[in-house]
Amino acid sequence: MTIRLLTAFLALTCASTVADEGMWTLENFPAQRVKNTYGSTIDTPWLNRIRSSVARLDGGCSGSFASKEGLVLTNNHCIWGCIRNLSSAEKNLSEEGFLAASRAEERSCPGMRISVLIETEDITANVVAATQGKPESEANEARKAKLSALEKSCEKQSGLGCESVNLYRGGQYFLYKYRRFDDVRLAFAPELPIAAFGGDPDNFNFPRWSLDMSLLRVYEDGKPATTTHFLPWRKAGPNADELVFVAGHPGTTRRLMTVDQLEHRRSSLLPQQLLQLSELRGRLLAWAKTGEEPARIVQQRILNYENAIKVYRQQLRALSDERQMAAKRSSEQALRDAVASDPKLAGAYGSAWKDVAVATQRYTEIEDRYRFIEAAQGFRGSLFSFARTLVRGTVEREKPNEQRLRAYRDTALPRVEQQLFADAPVYPEYEQLQLGFSLAKLREWLGPDDVTVKRVLGTSSPDDLAMALVSGSRLADPEVRKQLWQGGVDAINQSDDPMIALARDIESEARELDQTFRDDIEAIWNDAAEKIAKARFEIGGTDVYPDATFTLRVTYGSVTGWKEKGATVDPFTYSDRLFERTTGSDPFRLPQSWENASTVLAPDLPFNLVATTDIIGGNSGSPMIDTQGRLVGLVFDGNIHSIAGAFWFNPHNNRTVAVHPAVMLESLEKIYGASDLLDELTVVN
Amino acid sequence: MTIRLLTAFLALTCASTVADEGMWTLENFPAQRVKNTYGSTIDTPWLNRIRSSVARLDGGCSGSFASKEGLVLTNNHCIWGCIRNLSSAEKNLSEEGFLAASRAEERSCPGMRISVLIETEDITANVVAATQGKPESEANEARKAKLSALEKSCEKQSGLGCESVNLYRGGQYFLYKYRRFDDVRLAFAPELPIAAFGGDPDNFNFPRWSLDMSLLRVYEDGKPATTTHFLPWRKAGPNADELVFVAGHPGTTRRLMTVDQLEHRRSSLLPQQLLQLSELRGRLLAWAKTGEEPARIVQQRILNYENAIKVYRQQLRALSDERQMAAKRSSEQALRDAVASDPKLAGAYGSAWKDVAVATQRYTEIEDRYRFIEAAQGFRGSLFSFARTLVRGTVEREKPNEQRLRAYRDTALPRVEQQLFADAPVYPEYEQLQLGFSLAKLREWLGPDDVTVKRVLGTSSPDDLAMALVSGSRLADPEVRKQLWQGGVDAINQSDDPMIALARDIESEARELDQTFRDDIEAIWNDAAEKIAKARFEIGGTDVYPDATFTLRVTYGSVTGWKEKGATVDPFTYSDRLFERTTGSDPFRLPQSWENASTVLAPDLPFNLVATTDIIGGNSGSPMIDTQGRLVGLVFDGNIHSIAGAFWFNPHNNRTVAVHPAVMLESLEKIYGASDLLDELTVVN
Repeated sequence: MTIRLLTAFLALTCASTVADEGMWTLENFPAQRVKNTYGSTIDTPWLNRIRSSVARLDGGCSGSFASKEGLVLTNNHCIWGCIRNLSSAEKNLSEEGFLAASRAEERSCPGMRISVLIETEDITANVVAATQGKPESEANEARKAKLSALEKSCEKQSGLGCESVNLYRGGQYFLYKYRRFDDVRLAFAPELPIAAFGGDPDNFNFPRWSLDMSLLRVYEDGKPATTTHFLPWRKAGPNADELVFVAGHPGTTRRLMTVDQLEHRRSSLLPQQLLQLSELRGRLLAWAKTGEEPARIVQQRILNYENAIKVYRQQLRALSDERQMAAKRSSEQALRDAVASDPKLAGAYGSAWKDVAVATQRYTEIEDRYRFIEAAQGFRGSLFSFARTLVRGTVEREKPNEQRLRAYRDTALPRVEQQLFADAPVYPEYEQLQLGFSLAKLREWLGPDDVTVKRVLGTSSPDDLAMALVSGSRLADPEVRKQLWQGGVDAINQSDDPMIALARDIESEARELDQTFRDDIEAIWNDAAEKIAKARFEIGGTDVYPDATFTLRVTYGSVTGWKEKGATVDPFTYSDRLFERTTGSDPFRLPQSWENASTVLAPDLPFNLVATTDIIGGNSGSPMIDTQGRLVGLVFDGNIHSIAGAFWFNPHNNRTVAVHPAVMLESLEKIYGASDLLDELTVVN
Repeated sequence: MTIRLLTAFLALTCASTVADEGMWTLENFPAQRVKNTYGSTIDTPWLNRIRSSVARLDGGCSGSFASKEGLVLTNNHCIWGCIRNLSSAEKNLSEEGFLAASRAEERSCPGMRISVLIETEDITANVVAATQGKPESEANEARKAKLSALEKSCEKQSGLGCESVNLYRGGQYFLYKYRRFDDVRLAFAPELPIAAFGGDPDNFNFPRWSLDMSLLRVYEDGKPATTTHFLPWRKAGPNADELVFVAGHPGTTRRLMTVDQLEHRRSSLLPQQLLQLSELRGRLLAWAKTGEEPARIVQQRILNYENAIKVYRQQLRALSDERQMAAKRSSEQALRDAVASDPKLAGAYGSAWKDVAVATQRYTEIEDRYRFIEAAQGFRGSLFSFARTLVRGTVEREKPNEQRLRAYRDTALPRVEQQLFADAPVYPEYEQLQLGFSLAKLREWLGPDDVTVKRVLGTSSPDDLAMALVSGSRLADPEVRKQLWQGGVDAINQSDDPMIALARDIESEARELDQTFRDDIEAIWNDAAEKIAKARFEIGGTDVYPDATFTLRVTYGSVTGWKEKGATVDPFTYSDRLFERTTGSDPFRLPQSWENASTVLAPDLPFNLVATTDIIGGNSGSPMIDTQGRLVGLVFDGNIHSIAGAFWFNPHNNRTVAVHPAVMLESLEKIYGASDLLDELTVVN
């Protein structure tokens, strides 16, 4: 390749990996860059301590150990499912908050699992060998079979939970080995009004005043687990401009996707999701007004949907920003030019972008059917989800491990069962609302003349069918689900449960859509992504971080505000302005326990803070850490600009938002009187 | 200019005005093109007869006279407002349908107006002279003042209703002179279940089976008006492939907009509207489930919102189609190149596209505030709308006619008063729902820290404030509104009505936004659009039709189906498949009167049909006419591809959907027994 092209590509690549950008794996942490920028030394022992101190909430969040006796700090919003499952019409823990009077009173969270990364193993060569020379769809199957096999033997050898991870969109494969905790209990949660103070209006905004924290405890054999590595809390928090780190499990970024894939996201997925979620939001809000119990049932779910709407809305905005997209196009073109100018690279990787475009085009032909039928957007609710797991899982379980769908491989089954058997309440009216809504959307998006729509609905309206299915199903009972699961394929085939019947009815088409997606689309995308990743490596080296994959990453940055429309945003907020902001009406209402807080907490008590660290959804609950490995913040959000971080990092305005340790400690002491928990923490100044 | 560039431009222009494309003014109807394509001669007398036979429903629809005694045929969905206003909890005309037992029983539609175009007058030179040499914002004001003055003197001289119209986005100005009917009464409407059979799922789809018709009658001095020109109905309808015309009032197209404006629509307005309307749809659907009366109140409104959602969704899809946008870009670039290559054209018009882009960029800075505060998206509902009219109109009325906002010029005031004083029911719970929703959106889109949001909401939640405003306001009473209007500025200033207080409170900011929009954005857009239009004329001549402006247009085409995913869609549907399609559940339920229809109507009775005519929203209710000037269809919809017609016409799949005359006549006779109305029609075979 010519030097000119290489330079152009590197310039563009570097333009997108400047400043504090990057969600780095521990193996590839840019210690030298941190040293150069901030003068601090980060070594392997430091990184290893962090790895052992950070937890993953398998439901989609992060956390950190806060004591050697299994105490885990995470966000309040990360455990809303647990809070709902422990609540009832008589006892609303979301509104009341929760503090276990003693360890014996800590309450088990149904279906919750926490994992801690112990070690990783590079299996790229192994995977590549299994797929070498095979056409894409065959390679895709071979790859999955190999990964299932490697995971299983890993678990057998190590006694740990093993998950395969692909980094750089297929460029590298690893086994991640986790210590698992399936007995997770709730120790402390503040009330929703202060945990999510500001609600949707303040979500993704800053300045901010939320005590979005909770404390869980992991148990082993019915006793608090021993967790040798945990983080001390630095009560004073970080100084302005101080170097900090965030360690956690960012979920998904799309920074390595092609422009074609981003445009497809802009024109297809995002509008489709926004239309559906907005209507569902409206339905839930209106239903919540019909009574206290409906309000309780959907209160947090509405916040979750509103969060998703804000994310998708800002993603759509970002992808509609022609300047940013032009930059993305240039950067892609530079890489393509660099590949094209070298015959060896061109031969090996040159077709990748075109292949992606072809597969994406193919996807547009099936995506509505795929989403509504296979991804079950047409069949929302817990009951259908149980039915799908039962219908599909019992069939898969009978196959050899390596021939199964990945969701039902041996190493995944314990988690499948944990969730299927979890004793969580199911609310029929809410189930009906969701199912009636989604059946209406199924008809709307596939059309009333679609053969599946006609067969599923018959002469019923979506609402009537939903009512019949929900009232006729017995799957709300965990015992019934257990019996069906244990009864296997025969029990499922003989079941007259109408929800099982529905899942059975659409199963062959759903599987076919899944197969088409995997063979004709995903396989091509993966193959092309591997090629692009390899081209990047060969041209730019590995000073590139992989897209987020809900695996452990460390990002660094500093406690620094930003300029918003010319005005400087200070990186810290203090409690005085929380009290000014209180109106008495949701979502600017304080819980009862906070009524006298303004006389108890100092007006200059630091509340929330921002840093330039590079995070994304999944990092919720992550510890913000100083160079000495002390907790200086609890990450719970990003600012509005952070949402575009799914596609690119803008160091000028992308900010992480965290709870300050001081307000956590002060409120635990002065508002909640949580002296036992405080005694358990290691607090330094 | 070079020949090459001119050829390129013309080729691209022609590519976008081929086949049966075009919403033509009568002055510029392409009779020669029709002659060449179809061999039929359309002359001026023919066009003049059509002009006199076609009606405009000023609320946003079209219609045609069906007798010399003022009978007007239009769609059922065009008179839903009237049906709602005439209904109550006890008497639901939407569900029951309506047939006046005699003329004396025909029921007045509150606030409805019908207009018939009598003549048009070209005032371009007059308007251009008034604005010559002035900077954009000054020219904009001068233009508006001139138009108000011309309209007023026109009304004085002609005794007709005069409205100025700008065509080709500012390239030409006309006075349109209308005969007005302010006393419009309902003679016949079928039940909603058959009028909108298939509901939202079938809306914009074909094959289709809807009896979307109604018959109104215009009155003068309390008696049926004499309407010399009307259309005979050709019962057999048109033949396949027959040449047909649609005459009516298409509302808005954006085919002459710049690519920059279309991209802005894609990234800003459409997502914003879709998010809001989808949530509102969800709220209304959930509220409708809480009782029969809520269901009655919002039934048609839900269909209206669903219609808007479908339109915006398909518009977004069209503007996200990179192939179509690329064609648009090429065509624009060809015109720009043609302009640039000729120094005279370049000097006069060359800056236009850049100017549009600058104004659009400026718009993005204020558009959310403009929409929520001035365009009142933050204050939905009839009560606020009354308050805004009262607060603003009383101030404007005191100014000289030519200095007023155009909405309150002398020629517009009678319509303002007609609507303000109309005795239409106002439903407090529904008002609260709308206002609570829109106040929440105001806070969501402008943010809780916005100074106006804070002042409006204070410490209230959006729902609480909405309840206080609606329950405290007396504006639901037409007498109260009349008194305030007549009391003028003093009465408004002294009013303690909370809705008036809200409208007063935001008035200065709303006016400022309106002014900024007019001076800094609209004026630039208009000026640039004029330049682009003139460049088009100078290069391509006037064989270009203007964008739709809710003024009379004639389009031609043929009764022809299309290919959908390889399958041929027949242009006609018949009653047999209606009965197959009936499920008994909304929206595929038939009304009681149709229960035995399958034994009464022939199975091969033509029901709906499609044609290649070029229409858009506003054409609803338009007659479809044969070469002999006979009605052969009642336009009520387009197929799904017709929605992209807002931006470009695709002759391969854009289709008009109409009710066949046979099903109208047969059901009037055999299902509704409307013998008096049938006797009044002129039916030919």
